Amino acid sequence: MAWFDWQDVFSRAVVQQLPINRSAFHPTEKADAMIETLESTQVAPETLRKIDAYWRAANYLSVGQIYLYDNPLLKRPLKIEDVKHMLLGHWGTTPGQNFIYAHLNRIIKQYDLDMIYVSGPGHGGPAVVGNTYLEGTYSEIYPHISQDEEGMRKLFIQFSFPGGIPSHASPECPGSIHEGGELGYSLSHSFGAVFDNPDLMVACVVGDGEAETGPLATAWHSNKFLNPATDGAVLPILHLNGYKIANPTILARIDHEELDQLMRGYGWTPIFVEGDDPMRMHAAMAEALDIAVEQIQSIQRKARESGDTTRPRWPMIVLRSPKGWTGPKFVDGVPIEGTFHSHQVPLSDPATRPDHLQQLEEWLRSYRPEELFDEGGRLRSEISDLAPTGDRRMGANPHANGGRLLRQLKMPDFREYAVEITERGCRGIGDTHVTGKFIRDVIQLNDDHKNFRVFGPDETLSNGLEAVFDVTQRQWNAATVDTDELLSPTGRVLEMLSEHQCEGWLEGYLLTGRHGLFNCYEAFVHIVDSMFNQHAKWLKVTSELPWRHKIASLNYLLASHVWRQDHNGFTHQDPGFIDVVVNKKAEIVRVYLPPDANCLLSVMDHCLRSRHYVNVVVAGKHPSPQWLTMDEAVEHCAKGIGVWDWAGNESSDDPDVVMACCGDVPTLETLAAVSILHEHLPELKIRVVNVVDLMRLQPKSEHPHGLSDPDFDELFTQDKHVIFAFHAYPWLVHRLTYRRTNHANIHVRGYKEEGTITTPFDMTVLNDLDRFHLVMDVIDRLPETGGQGQALKARMQEKLVEHRRYINKNGQDMPEVRNWQWSPTR
Amino acid sequence: MAWFDWQDVFSRAVVQQLPINRSAFHPTEKADAMIETLESTQVAPETLRKIDAYWRAANYLSVGQIYLYDNPLLKRPLKIEDVKHMLLGHWGTTPGQNFIYAHLNRIIKQYDLDMIYVSGPGHGGPAVVGNTYLEGTYSEIYPHISQDEEGMRKLFIQFSFPGGIPSHASPECPGSIHEGGELGYSLSHSFGAVFDNPDLMVACVVGDGEAETGPLATAWHSNKFLNPATDGAVLPILHLNGYKIANPTILARIDHEELDQLMRGYGWTPIFVEGDDPMRMHAAMAEALDIAVEQIQSIQRKARESGDTTRPRWPMIVLRSPKGWTGPKFVDGVPIEGTFHSHQVPLSDPATRPDHLQQLEEWLRSYRPEELFDEGGRLRSEISDLAPTGDRRMGANPHANGGRLLRQLKMPDFREYAVEITERGCRGIGDTHVTGKFIRDVIQLNDDHKNFRVFGPDETLSNGLEAVFDVTQRQWNAATVDTDELLSPTGRVLEMLSEHQCEGWLEGYLLTGRHGLFNCYEAFVHIVDSMFNQHAKWLKVTSELPWRHKIASLNYLLASHVWRQDHNGFTHQDPGFIDVVVNKKAEIVRVYLPPDANCLLSVMDHCLRSRHYVNVVVAGKHPSPQWLTMDEAVEHCAKGIGVWDWAGNESSDDPDVVMACCGDVPTLETLAAVSILHEHLPELKIRVVNVVDLMRLQPKSEHPHGLSDPDFDELFTQDKHVIFAFHAYPWLVHRLTYRRTNHANIHVRGYKEEGTITTPFDMTVLNDLDRFHLVMDVIDRLPETGGQGQALKARMQEKLVEHRRYINKNGQDMPEVRNWQWSPTR
Repeated sequence: MAWFDWQDVFSRAVVQQLPINRSAFHPTEKADAMIETLESTQVAPETLRKIDAYWRAANYLSVGQIYLYDNPLLKRPLKIEDVKHMLLGHWGTTPGQNFIYAHLNRIIKQYDLDMIYVSGPGHGGPAVVGNTYLEGTYSEIYPHISQDEEGMRKLFIQFSFPGGIPSHASPECPGSIHEGGELGYSLSHSFGAVFDNPDLMVACVVGDGEAETGPLATAWHSNKFLNPATDGAVLPILHLNGYKIANPTILARIDHEELDQLMRGYGWTPIFVEGDDPMRMHAAMAEALDIAVEQIQSIQRKARESGDTTRPRWPMIVLRSPKGWTGPKFVDGVPIEGTFHSHQVPLSDPATRPDHLQQLEEWLRSYRPEELFDEGGRLRSEISDLAPTGDRRMGANPHANGGRLLRQLKMPDFREYAVEITERGCRGIGDTHVTGKFIRDVIQLNDDHKNFRVFGPDETLSNGLEAVFDVTQRQWNAATVDTDELLSPTGRVLEMLSEHQCEGWLEGYLLTGRHGLFNCYEAFVHIVDSMFNQHAKWLKVTSELPWRHKIASLNYLLASHVWRQDHNGFTHQDPGFIDVVVNKKAEIVRVYLPPDANCLLSVMDHCLRSRHYVNVVVAGKHPSPQWLTMDEAVEHCAKGIGVWDWAGNESSDDPDVVMACCGDVPTLETLAAVSILHEHLPELKIRVVNVVDLMRLQPKSEHPHGLSDPDFDELFTQDKHVIFAFHAYPWLVHRLTYRRTNHANIHVRGYKEEGTITTPFDMTVLNDLDRFHLVMDVIDRLPETGGQGQALKARMQEKLVEHRRYINKNGQDMPEVRNWQWSPTR
Repeated sequence: MAWFDWQDVFSRAVVQQLPINRSAFHPTEKADAMIETLESTQVAPETLRKIDAYWRAANYLSVGQIYLYDNPLLKRPLKIEDVKHMLLGHWGTTPGQNFIYAHLNRIIKQYDLDMIYVSGPGHGGPAVVGNTYLEGTYSEIYPHISQDEEGMRKLFIQFSFPGGIPSHASPECPGSIHEGGELGYSLSHSFGAVFDNPDLMVACVVGDGEAETGPLATAWHSNKFLNPATDGAVLPILHLNGYKIANPTILARIDHEELDQLMRGYGWTPIFVEGDDPMRMHAAMAEALDIAVEQIQSIQRKARESGDTTRPRWPMIVLRSPKGWTGPKFVDGVPIEGTFHSHQVPLSDPATRPDHLQQLEEWLRSYRPEELFDEGGRLRSEISDLAPTGDRRMGANPHANGGRLLRQLKMPDFREYAVEITERGCRGIGDTHVTGKFIRDVIQLNDDHKNFRVFGPDETLSNGLEAVFDVTQRQWNAATVDTDELLSPTGRVLEMLSEHQCEGWLEGYLLTGRHGLFNCYEAFVHIVDSMFNQHAKWLKVTSELPWRHKIASLNYLLASHVWRQDHNGFTHQDPGFIDVVVNKKAEIVRVYLPPDANCLLSVMDHCLRSRHYVNVVVAGKHPSPQWLTMDEAVEHCAKGIGVWDWAGNESSDDPDVVMACCGDVPTLETLAAVSILHEHLPELKIRVVNVVDLMRLQPKSEHPHGLSDPDFDELFTQDKHVIFAFHAYPWLVHRLTYRRTNHANIHVRGYKEEGTITTPFDMTVLNDLDRFHLVMDVIDRLPETGGQGQALKARMQEKLVEHRRYINKNGQDMPEVRNWQWSPTR
């Protein structure tokens, strides 16, 4: 069925949607009739002409941003001084995005849509900036970029100019929730935005370069998680302009039939709009958008009226148009429009090449600016009339400035979930299991506003948050069978085996003013290092923009962590995500390592209430000792770091050694070591310091949570040895403390890439972080422990041999370790 | 066309492949006839019975590995003591993989295939270990795991046991190039393995959980890069067992037609094998494999005989079988087989529950071990006869121990590409452009063996390696048009806009004994942090296995780096990859920051010759000053760190201050600062230290490249201030040097997340790493510079104001900065 020859497309305009023959789909009558190629349109010719004028205006502004330093309205012939010295920017994607934006303006007005725009392709800045300027939102936020000649001049200069704005849909651009400097997350962000926003529609432009990335390739499957009754809709517009930086794109170079199959295989119903003749393309695109919006509305109406939420085959649009459309066809004999040569700046040298300057002027004038802008530089009202007004403008839509819509979460009192401390070190059920109940009630309390979600790659149960399933299920809209459990068309938990989707959905959810939690294995959260980086950068920049309202924090709960991956082996052992995190701006990042369940509750409560941070919480799911009563935990977490008097035995303020610990397993091993020392070297005065808030270790000058130097010295002394048992790579502690008075005496034990299939305790032995090694560390640092110390050290070495022998035979830890419990010996 | 009801499948066995109606495909006659459901087979019944016996043997060994501590052949009734204390492992995926492996054994023998097996689903260890044991390779490598009763007992005990082996296809398992603890890379690794291996076929089992990951979702498109004449073939087997840890999988819960479209949309021709009745499934699978192999061979024959390499629609298999197939149907009334409950250990409590113990024994005996193994515990020869012998066994195939096949690269003399240093600091063409010529000749010299490739996400040109296109092109097998450039069905460069694919392909290429280079933007290499982690872990473990031969290093060239992303903005600015890298084992990782082109040549030569490392090279592509002659560069790089006498002015060995630099831009700014200091404070004795090999900074005890403390003190003094200009986040230097004598005096300037659209020099100003700040740092640290120093500091502050004013007006750096050149003033 070779009904399409892709090499032949650029002489005409086509809109095509084959009907699909499945009962699950709700076709409009219009779609049913579309077996044949359509070239006619039902949109009035004068509307199409207005769209074209709007498009030309946006294209004019885009070229102006890339090139012009002065003479914005071309009131005089273009001179060298009118052109920027350094030409930066990307023309290639821009005209296609301008085309889409203009058409969306019409459709928003026609159907009174609540719509935002997500710009997936890289470097579409000139388009989104130009369009928000045309619709007026840009000047409202930045009054100096006024809608007149002087404002236009400033608009042009600031683009890719020092102190100005980047070439992406950056945070500075109104209407953006997706900068897109790094490619791949446009669809995930879009789906995140429409979950629980039933009236919102996101027009998501997916670049065909971006479409090659892994995260984007799997994001198409997000439609298996969308509920047509309670969620909004995403309208993906796959923009096939055919090229990346210097290569063609895959999706532009497969058979038309294959692309159709691919989109249908992903569960979408594609509508193809293909061609290069502007007026025919306007007709085709208008038609396609009418079809798409009517199909979406029909799907939603059916689901909402009948309650039948069977997964629909949502429409999507494939727009095939030339890269650098309407730009120079040739420069110096090299074909530009429709090739990768139009990716950046087609005319590279107008300042020194008079012919380039002339060609630039012709290009600009080809949009007939005098028809578009009045004498003062304002878009003529008969054209601006195309765009919606007020908050319906995509640049002004409040969903794209999510903090405006943010509601405070209703929070249960976390103290009510407290673990009772019958005695210090009593065994808990697993810290995340306790917090699961708290999260469960957060879900329930906010059920009316549906503004809180839990995301995870199929690990919410495995991570110990099973309590949430008392009150909700996993939202899932693919097929089900009788034996399925905890699946439902609506539910607060979203699980897909893609950390990229979990992160992208959550980001989109937060950016549109809601709250959430991402639970993940510690080792595999590295999969989203780069997404975290980009989100942290977004938070940093938006925190400096007064008009951007603060959003809820991005909360990570890393529950299956490095020290309890003994059974999963070496591949699952990596605590390095926090190393990546602390590289970002101190104002944005927070890292917590609560030692027990009550501390975890206190920390989690704090994180869920916080704004505009990234909070990383590392906590265990396995049964482990409980140390602090809720009152103690609240106080300890508020301080973030503190001495555990009950564990140490210093009578004065002058210990012989400080035993510091950070993380649940290091705390356990430290206290076990302390109890051995108490028993065998009762004279030794030990101070125990526990760290919950990692950033307390940094100097106050480096991080807002940082301890002052006197406070740090107070805790860690100025000259005593500090044996520091740390959850992650040991160097991180040094990196945070290297300027502290006593740094030379801080000796850190942490994970050092030694692991295999082994027992829980043996994981710590392999990395010298176990109780026996910690005791030996103390003795090695304190020669004054003398013969008694040496005897104890020998005993510890014997213990290690005994341990090794035991586990190799029995496959589990020896009873004295397995059943160890804290008992105060003083 | 609802020709399939997925809910109905588990009562029968089906093999289906619809013909595709395209000329590009080369169908066998057999495939043409397959419009109808096939349930017959042409494979002889006795062969099918042998396959079934082999499968039962593998299943028996798998259950044994998960459960048994003793009584491996069940010669006596099962007792509690025969069962392990801690039950770890994953049954769910195992029987399906055993099924596939047995069938592949037949097909290898029948067609004399050179085939390896890639196990994509997580935790398939019991399958691959059991099968390599059955075929004999396991015992050849580990003689104590002998093919007898005692060996079988040890085989069972070691699984998921301290000191034993993990639950994945880990490095310890012969035949594995893909551990798969982290999911998503099986297809990328498989394609990497078959590039330039025309006779190799990789059977790649893709888990349906894994298939949800982004990297896997885009890896299907790898077929657009495969040349049927000069590369081998990948046979993907999508294993739909329906469930992940606790959820169904997406691909198992979409309509059959959608899945068919999805695979066709990805460019494959799926063959469906679906059912649960073992004997009928054997017939169907045998048939499907015959079809697939014959189609692959037909495609290859056509391409190789006719030279027509038009992209074929390669076959792939969809195997839908129950999760935990042949395991317990119900346990305690809960359905297990065919549900997610079979993911891990179906019978959790045989040691305390007699009924579980009995059910386990029945399960084990259901495979009829007495029919399979002789009295001594060896697989009966009439069954073992199914498997191939010698190197045709998938566990023994040399491609899966790539070091065995590794050929030394033929290397040109890198000195011949030297930049001539007409004067210190003369402007080069961009360091990577110089190295591009060297890489070009590496490609050409090794053209006969075709064992070197360059990978990148559409950035090989952008990263300055354009010279490689003098001798090769980008390999590309999708459609082309007249205006395309540098595309060809064969070529040494592979570019897809997915860092995941580039990394995964390269890993697969290296693991099968070849060489390569990954060029990438520095900020976006974070996308593969997690893949790097896994590869580094693989290298660490394999370096400890004597039978694993060393492979070529994984070389990263990060050419578009943080300091020259001024025009791309904040999203493109992140130098944190090396922070992730240095967390891994010191024996494995190397980080180089050559300051100029000659150093880069020397470093790159070294990296390409090295083995079993990960080398990270950060180098610029923009024109920049050239400092060292080739002889000097060779000496400097060999030392990895050194004093630049010609730049400093200390007459004795006693400088007033040390100016250290690491990275090309920091070196430039440091030398500019030094020249200002020489001019204005000529009395000040400055030592300039440049660092190429970052690991030299670490103590020798921490890294094999680490400087001894005396050597470090010699360079950095014991007590003088060190102003250290660093390429990446400043804390990394502290982390590496915190134990050094003079650490308290080391003051590091680096990137601290301050960036925007700006000029190249301004990027350094924003982060206080520019020459003016460096000069001020020196003055601040050396009060003895007195009034002269204060005057210079004031001048520097004026310069910064002047700079800001200039760039805001002109959009580029002021001429004195732009045109600055080193001139020795002493």
